[in-house]
Amino acid sequence: MPSMTILTEAELRKIVKLDLDAVACVENAFRALATEAVAMPPILRLDIPEHRGEVDVKTAYVPGIDAFAIKISPGFFDNPKLGLPSVNGMMVLLSARTGLVEALLLDNGYLTDIRTAAAGAVAAKHLSRPDASVAAIFGAGVQAALQLEALTLVRPIAEARIWARDAAKAERLAGAMRQKLGIRVRVEPDAAKATSGADIVVTTTPSTEPLVHEGLIVSGQHVTAMGSDAEHKNELAPALIAVADLYVADSARQARRLGELHHAIAAGLIGADAEVAELGEIVAGLRPGRAATNDITIADLTGTGVQDTAIATLARDRARAAHAGTPFES
Amino acid sequence: MPSMTILTEAELRKIVKLDLDAVACVENAFRALATEAVAMPPILRLDIPEHRGEVDVKTAYVPGIDAFAIKISPGFFDNPKLGLPSVNGMMVLLSARTGLVEALLLDNGYLTDIRTAAAGAVAAKHLSRPDASVAAIFGAGVQAALQLEALTLVRPIAEARIWARDAAKAERLAGAMRQKLGIRVRVEPDAAKATSGADIVVTTTPSTEPLVHEGLIVSGQHVTAMGSDAEHKNELAPALIAVADLYVADSARQARRLGELHHAIAAGLIGADAEVAELGEIVAGLRPGRAATNDITIADLTGTGVQDTAIATLARDRARAAHAGTPFES
Repeated sequence: MPSMTILTEAELRKIVKLDLDAVACVENAFRALATEAVAMPPILRLDIPEHRGEVDVKTAYVPGIDAFAIKISPGFFDNPKLGLPSVNGMMVLLSARTGLVEALLLDNGYLTDIRTAAAGAVAAKHLSRPDASVAAIFGAGVQAALQLEALTLVRPIAEARIWARDAAKAERLAGAMRQKLGIRVRVEPDAAKATSGADIVVTTTPSTEPLVHEGLIVSGQHVTAMGSDAEHKNELAPALIAVADLYVADSARQARRLGELHHAIAAGLIGADAEVAELGEIVAGLRPGRAATNDITIADLTGTGVQDTAIATLARDRARAAHAGTPFES
Repeated sequence: MPSMTILTEAELRKIVKLDLDAVACVENAFRALATEAVAMPPILRLDIPEHRGEVDVKTAYVPGIDAFAIKISPGFFDNPKLGLPSVNGMMVLLSARTGLVEALLLDNGYLTDIRTAAAGAVAAKHLSRPDASVAAIFGAGVQAALQLEALTLVRPIAEARIWARDAAKAERLAGAMRQKLGIRVRVEPDAAKATSGADIVVTTTPSTEPLVHEGLIVSGQHVTAMGSDAEHKNELAPALIAVADLYVADSARQARRLGELHHAIAAGLIGADAEVAELGEIVAGLRPGRAATNDITIADLTGTGVQDTAIATLARDRARAAHAGTPFES
């Protein structure tokens, strides 16, 4: 009888944190994406318009990792009316050797939050100036908090500005971040003032219109856009993509279809088949990252299955070591 | 905290059986596929050639059914060397209203076996002669047994012939079926003798070359091919598809890509865009089924996500009624 381990969100929060191990495991996943015969099929997407619902299923097999995750990510946007969170989900971890289910990770999206923030850290590590100390964060949700925290793992961040539509939410986030990270954090309702003097700008919103225009970004700055994971979402002005010294996608194929890149292509500013650097190629040393202090660099993160496989495998390993979870025979 | 029910294979075997309820639930799913705005995205497929592994993920949302299944079906063909079954799997049942996980069905493929056999019963009910009493089954595996049993639910089957490469396995199956169904069952190693006088022929093999040639099938017979669920598999001679009075697919889109139909298209005998009847259209009365006693009819079953959603929802309902399964909070 196949035996598996079931891990709840509470258990996973105890054993997997946003730390340098999580960043390293996601960095290794990106390296593998550029150097190994990774199998990462297109996302399976189911829409249920009657209930404003959508479900994405992602997976990726990474040679050298002995298991692979299948992640189920539902988003049902009427849920808040019912007192339920919009976004949810779980991962199934299967053995890459036998296909047997090794673990059910009932994370309600927690592991996705961690691997997404870890990708932000990987992008900043390879693309921002090493002395980057000022961050501007667009958005005030879970990823706004985690992306800022992720930056502090890889860069000497001493100051952050929060720009968000909801001023009260922005203030709450600023307060929480001051307390958690021990750095200066202030709310800045003017986007130009938020980015002025920032070394790293991170957008974390579900915006459908550009928030960061090319005039806001100057030499030496790095921008990570991680909010766009669907065709209609757009955080960066297409012209900004065109003027950047270095544009980097997590997955060129996905970014052409649903990242910031896709809007630049639609605007005719970038060719549909233009060659695009991938984050994993830079991690692996196959392409240079930031070449000069004055470069404008952009990372376009759409979210990839290799990150899920990496974080789910880390969770399984941590659970084994900690004897966490409930064993289950089926 | 979201609450779900976990059901093991043993629990599912107790509450879901191959019976007329299972057939009705799959029949309703096919009807919905033809008459409702069903959302059934293309299958997500991951290949792991190093370990001769493959994983299919299927899903479908059926309006009127309040939940939908996401089915994970791994097949790892070196597993028998390790003492493990090749084929495995589980289903996740999510609320169609909130996207929350309602049940984890750790069925190891059992529910797929049942819904696949039930589709065979639906095909026979609508396409074979009502007085069909003799069946020829190709194959001696789990589906050979279940497809024969399924036929007995909808037709007055009194005699069956088993054709299989492995004579010993065929004899064991024949003995088991005699005992279980109380009908005459014999092994017939000659395909022509197996089909001669049969009213219904069902192929259940992973064959990659046609087993049933057009010369074996005569007026009045119905053929269901359910073994082909991948491009390289092929049980029926392309010429047989061309001469049939009525060819019916479970899903025309899938059959054109990976069913028996796809080989007939490749052979140039059927146009790639030829209109094709679907089983659900016949169930719904939108198209006629068998029109005359003398017709040759063919059902090409590739397996659809609506069947998974239907059987998984039936399992959840039965589990609720029987207070079966383990509740789990995440």
